[in-house]
Parts: sequence; structure tokens; C-alpha cells
Amino acid sequence: MSHGPNVRPTVDDSPDGTVLTSAPGDAPVDRATAAARRVVDALLRTDRANANLDRVAEELDSIANHLEQHAPAVAERLVDMWHGEGVTRHDPVTGPENAIAPPLVLTGRGEGSVDGVVTLTIPYQGPPGHVHGGVAAQLLDHTLGVANTWAGRNGPTAQLNVRYHRPTPLFVPLTVRGRMVSQEGSKINSIGEIRTADGTLCVSVAGLFIDKTVARPR
Amino acid sequence: MSHGPNVRPTVDDSPDGTVLTSAPGDAPVDRATAAARRVVDALLRTDRANANLDRVAEELDSIANHLEQHAPAVAERLVDMWHGEGVTRHDPVTGPENAIAPPLVLTGRGEGSVDGVVTLTIPYQGPPGHVHGGVAAQLLDHTLGVANTWAGRNGPTAQLNVRYHRPTPLFVPLTVRGRMVSQEGSKINSIGEIRTADGTLCVSVAGLFIDKTVARPR
Repeated sequence: MSHGPNVRPTVDDSPDGTVLTSAPGDAPVDRATAAARRVVDALLRTDRANANLDRVAEELDSIANHLEQHAPAVAERLVDMWHGEGVTRHDPVTGPENAIAPPLVLTGRGEGSVDGVVTLTIPYQGPPGHVHGGVAAQLLDHTLGVANTWAGRNGPTAQLNVRYHRPTPLFVPLTVRGRMVSQEGSKINSIGEIRTADGTLCVSVAGLFIDKTVARPR
Repeated sequence: MSHGPNVRPTVDDSPDGTVLTSAPGDAPVDRATAAARRVVDALLRTDRANANLDRVAEELDSIANHLEQHAPAVAERLVDMWHGEGVTRHDPVTGPENAIAPPLVLTGRGEGSVDGVVTLTIPYQGPPGHVHGGVAAQLLDHTLGVANTWAGRNGPTAQLNVRYHRPTPLFVPLTVRGRMVSQEGSKINSIGEIRTADGTLCVSVAGLFIDKTVARPR
């Protein structure tokens, strides 16, 4: 079944393998954001003494000035950002326009779950060489929200219970998975997990969400 | 009491108002990171059609190339990054060298809690005009870790239970607070919350941590 641009696909009307988030493309803003991600990562790795960081600071400030000079008022931008009912491009987990996002790309499965593979690097570090516990929570919270949408539900997080089974490694592919498991009235229960490529469970989550539409700026 | 550079202050030996995280300073790497934060934010706000984003992508890639050319091998950088036992400068919540960090600055209080004030902008957005639930979880996870250190304990997160009482607004000062409440053997229990300036509770958290030292790269 085909979709108009403003319809969110669900497991009931869309095939296994449907991409549910907005994968980075070749648009100039996607390329600029991908480059900004590289800068964020490289700033944490570069030689503090010999990388001419005074000059880098000036150049980055100059680019920020340029971008801000071309920015509309924030209220206006928020309306534009939320225009339509399609997939967001700006969120801090999957957004190709958000340099904070790794970004994670999530795919819907015919049996009802959603999953994606992501490799995290130094900006996402908590314990030495491992993923920050809060970053894992953030990826899982967002994945459960996308899983709810794939199940035909939608609404904000009410409660998130995250369990850390073992340290989650940086620099290797991680599979992030989520699914809606039950609904009672407006309460949606969803679960998720992060595993390494060999199937080792690192983090699991159970979330309670409230099934309601959140108003978008107009 | 004074501290050497490798000692983490605790409520038992340090005065009310001790800053527990590494506040951004005037070092070139701090200024370059602050400028990168401005770029990340402005990329989400600028005019998609008229900000010459093709050129911006080229310039940012060029800066990333320069920084990477001056970067040591990742394994070497990890050792350097974790050298000493002081406060980290690279984590994704408080790190002045991490452009993903807002950054949050946390202060220790004489009665045992830690707190900080932070204003979040569009990169941290979840629901329209509000903070991403996963971002709130991330700030609270990190704050509980710092609260445990202030209480003289230390160790990774085992479990994090986050409750979302109401949407947390962007663009206004938020107070993030945490404290260790009890310890049984190696199990540390800590709680925290995020409130707006008028005291409205937005998010609360209860965390279970394991009291142990995590090995640093050598």
C-alpha cells in the first residue's frame, strides 16, 4: 500500500522492512549536518596543543553567525519544523538535520517490532570506552516511541524503566529494538533493548506511554 | 580543605557551593566546542533554501578534515582523555569539550544534593517546543552519577526509573537536582528531578547504581 507524505506507516498497512525514520540523504542541510557531526567527533579527538583550535573556534563562530543571520524567528521555525504529519527530521536520535543524533535509522518489521543498527563514537561516551547510560536511555525512549507509531499508537512517555545488564561498547554495531506489547485504555506498554552484533544483551527498557496526540505549533 | 587535581570533592570534605563538573572556560578547545554548539543549533534553525548550505557543508568538512589530521589514534586519545582521576571534560552532559553537552554545570550542596541550571534549545527537542524524554533521562542519569560522587560513592548505573509528570519546556531555565539516598552493600539508591524556575516538577528519577571503580584505559 502506498502512502501520502503525511501518513505514518503502521504494521497493519505497510510491508516488513518499511523505513520509519528519515534516513540522511543528499540534501544540503543533511550534508552540512553530517559534516557538523564529524566536527563534533573530531573536536573530542584532535590534538589539544597543535590543531590550531583558536583559529577553528573563529571559523566555527563565523559559520554559526552566517547560519543565524539566515534563521527566521524561533516561533516561526518551530511551525515550519512541525509542518505536516510525516516523520520528523530534527529529533536528537534519528534526525538527519540534528548533529546531536547519531543518527539512528529505524525499520518496521512484519511481526510488529522496529529495529536499527548504530555505531556510537566518543561523543556518546560514559564509562571509559563505553556508551553513556543516559545515551542508551535516550535511544531506547525514542525507539519505543517509533515502535508505538508502527503499532498505530502515538503519545508522550509517562514512565521509562531502563536496566543496564552490562557496559555497552563504543565503536561496534549495536542493534536497538523496540515493540509495543499491550494497551489498556490510554496506557501503552512497550519494551526494547540494545544488543551487540553477537546478540549480547546490554540494556533493556520497559516504557509506559499515553496514547494521545500532542499539539503541533501553528 | 584543599584538593589536589586528582581528588574528587565530597560533601564530607568540601564546602556548600563546590562546583563538581568542569565548567567551560577560555581554553581554545572550550571555545571551539562552544562555537560547534552554536553551529549545531543554528543548522536546525537556519533557512533551508537561502543559507548556502552546500558551501557550509564544504567548510565544515574542511574543518573536520583538519581536526582529524591532527588526531592521534583513538586508543591513544582514550588513554589521554581518562588520564588522572579528576572531573571529565568530554562527557555528553557536562563536558566543555563535547558539543553534544548543553553543557550542564553541577554544584554540590552542604545538605548532600547536587544541582545545576540549564536552558535547552532546539537540538534537545522531543514533543513540539519541549524537551525530548530521552534527553531528560540522560541529564538525570548523569546528575545522579555526580550526586553519588559528591556522597563519596562511585559506579555505573544498573537501573534508571524515569517518570514524566508533565512536558518539560525548551528555552527556559530548568533546575536539575540529584542526591544519593541510601546504600545497602554495593547497591546505591539515588533520586533526582527536573523543575522549572517556579518549582513545577516535570521529570523525576530513581536510580540504582553499583558502587565500584570502573577501569580506565591505560
